[in-house]
Amino acid sequence: MTDFAKHFQKKSWIEVAEDSDFSLQNIPFGIIKNKNFAPRVASRIGDYAIDLLTLFEFGYLDKLGFNKDQFDNNRLNKLMKSGKNGSRILRERLIDLFEISNEELQKNHGHREKVLIPINEVENEMPIQIGDYTDFYSSIEHATNVGTMFRDPNNALLPNWKYIPVGYHGRASSIILSGTPIHRPKGQQKPNEEEPPVFGPSKLLDFELEMAFITFDGKPLGDSISTAEAEDYIFGMVIFNDWSARDIQKWEYVPLGPFLAKNFASSISPWIVTLDALEPFRTAGPKQDPKVFPYLEYQGDKNIDIKLSVELQAENGEPNVICESNYKYMYWNQNQQLAHHTINGCNIKGGDIYASGTISGSEPSSYGSMLELSWRGTKPLKLKDGSERKFIQDHDTITMKAHCEKDGVRVGFGEVTSKVLPAK
Amino acid sequence: MTDFAKHFQKKSWIEVAEDSDFSLQNIPFGIIKNKNFAPRVASRIGDYAIDLLTLFEFGYLDKLGFNKDQFDNNRLNKLMKSGKNGSRILRERLIDLFEISNEELQKNHGHREKVLIPINEVENEMPIQIGDYTDFYSSIEHATNVGTMFRDPNNALLPNWKYIPVGYHGRASSIILSGTPIHRPKGQQKPNEEEPPVFGPSKLLDFELEMAFITFDGKPLGDSISTAEAEDYIFGMVIFNDWSARDIQKWEYVPLGPFLAKNFASSISPWIVTLDALEPFRTAGPKQDPKVFPYLEYQGDKNIDIKLSVELQAENGEPNVICESNYKYMYWNQNQQLAHHTINGCNIKGGDIYASGTISGSEPSSYGSMLELSWRGTKPLKLKDGSERKFIQDHDTITMKAHCEKDGVRVGFGEVTSKVLPAK
Repeated sequence: MTDFAKHFQKKSWIEVAEDSDFSLQNIPFGIIKNKNFAPRVASRIGDYAIDLLTLFEFGYLDKLGFNKDQFDNNRLNKLMKSGKNGSRILRERLIDLFEISNEELQKNHGHREKVLIPINEVENEMPIQIGDYTDFYSSIEHATNVGTMFRDPNNALLPNWKYIPVGYHGRASSIILSGTPIHRPKGQQKPNEEEPPVFGPSKLLDFELEMAFITFDGKPLGDSISTAEAEDYIFGMVIFNDWSARDIQKWEYVPLGPFLAKNFASSISPWIVTLDALEPFRTAGPKQDPKVFPYLEYQGDKNIDIKLSVELQAENGEPNVICESNYKYMYWNQNQQLAHHTINGCNIKGGDIYASGTISGSEPSSYGSMLELSWRGTKPLKLKDGSERKFIQDHDTITMKAHCEKDGVRVGFGEVTSKVLPAK
Repeated sequence: MTDFAKHFQKKSWIEVAEDSDFSLQNIPFGIIKNKNFAPRVASRIGDYAIDLLTLFEFGYLDKLGFNKDQFDNNRLNKLMKSGKNGSRILRERLIDLFEISNEELQKNHGHREKVLIPINEVENEMPIQIGDYTDFYSSIEHATNVGTMFRDPNNALLPNWKYIPVGYHGRASSIILSGTPIHRPKGQQKPNEEEPPVFGPSKLLDFELEMAFITFDGKPLGDSISTAEAEDYIFGMVIFNDWSARDIQKWEYVPLGPFLAKNFASSISPWIVTLDALEPFRTAGPKQDPKVFPYLEYQGDKNIDIKLSVELQAENGEPNVICESNYKYMYWNQNQQLAHHTINGCNIKGGDIYASGTISGSEPSSYGSMLELSWRGTKPLKLKDGSERKFIQDHDTITMKAHCEKDGVRVGFGEVTSKVLPAK
């Protein structure tokens, strides 16, 4: 059993601001590039990117079982072939190397200058080549809100919801990196029940505040992953904005689920925070009643206390925090999601991404979508500039942030931010 | 405008049986391997695989713009980077090279022996690294049958069905090659409306007779592909068995669509038949009423006359043809499917696969699933050995075949066959 909090007392010889998401206790993984070098694997501490390819070439990662190609790469997938043990060994080595008492790199100023790059001098790329993408629907508050609005408030949850971590397959090709703007999607809508459908730009564009986990290669097709095994197959997490066009969704989704309403874009944050870095922030999940099937039972605390926020910024305006939620509200946890996904023998692969579904809490200020925040447009949000929002307007920027904090240690994800451009 | 029927009079110097799917007019692409060589790109004529890597190394494919890596590969994706024009040039060259009047290879017996390998001496591999997988629902007879059984016979089609080529995202990781057995999936079911759900092996395992097309790289995220442009982005087609667990599906699919009921396995045939080879078999589709939105309008004949059959073979039994259908019955054609899929800006990539949905005709003998053939289990099928089938039993083998035939020319897909093993 790894003691994941053992690093809590440690400080780095790299200065880290108190409110930085990228403490010595984090050590996330991502891809960086700039005009001087090709994309490569990196980590981050404070306001510095750590060039892991150069660190490897200087010999600081010797004897850990890695090869150069795993760092000299524009995606993390090859590094992830080393599995849970590989990413754990690498992160532990980096924590050790950057800890204040370690002088190996600290005293080698020639090497330091090459390995540590100010974060504003690099750009991120997509961290992984995504295989399959699944979106769950695991927040009971969100599912209840949607059911209340569109069906019967007294029977808001569908009969299967408390038995099944409901999920569906989404589009991997249109998952994009934070910073990439999106265009408002066009599509069929049926605003008037009595009239035929119409075609045009979506009028009800929305975000969904989600977190997502990324897997290592799993078992062969036909085998299942238990709740106890699930963490061995989870690399880490990112913030996930599941853009949604509510009017397109309403007209298309019966009977086979959301399609064009979702697959025009989903945005992710650039740094993958490992599950190991998140372990100290585990917390108990809600009581599940009725009792779940044995394959969904689990031991220990499997929710994670990750504070979440959403900001909406109009063109030339200032940011408005419009939602504050928490990943700990999830009814179904990651272990249950992965056990359910594979109970039929479905195989998972390295680079697959599994999003949580919209994460809403019980307070209206914690609702994770405009649909819920404006209660289907009936309660417009007032912004600081005096304007109102029922849904997202052209030129609005949506920024989601996520971090854990405990005993003075902060481990966070940075942000995922995207601007909405008019329909093409 | 290419005259796709110009090859109809040609014969090959390789003997091709009259009932072979792999005439000189076909020239499909796939991956072969055996104990003597690593997986590589191949084509097929009659009962011979054509080793395209060796053909390239001998210089027969010089000056066509290809490089060795495109053939020395265990998937077709790199070859497909040459796009529609590349695959067209390659196929035309092969038709020319194997045409009876061409003596280049025909007279070089040393080269012939290396390039042509009896088909029973090779195994196929998965032809492509699949990116995203989408499943449509485009047969009006199938959608009507399902609606009649589960909803209201007088309003069998849902209101959106004739406006939208309904589709949903499926699981790419569990798409497997013909010949690979599958295990009966386990999962939650709710056989009794008044009782809680139960867990166990699916009792209502089914096949779905589908065809699927495979795309080249498309346009950037945010752009759309018109019905007129669609064929420039379609490489070719395979037979697709969309295995389905009806009892799992019924309990899980509201509101987000099928998930575990489908993602345990889908099986494809090994040879990708190019759209060029299928062009001579185009035929008119059904009249679409109401009129479709402008982005779904199309010119010319866009359906394809592909004869389809399904055989069920019990352990130690003989094959029973249980369904004869045709791809020409599709209400929505490929061009419309791709135009719809991208109208919101969703991007497509090389190696994506797009399945048609179950292909049923109007006659009960043409229904493309056990659900419809046995009418939800109320009309069991009688097999030659005297046994009955409502759904698929353990140790049954399902084989789907598909071919076009016209003016004495046959172009086909071979088969996709898979045996069902008991639940693990």
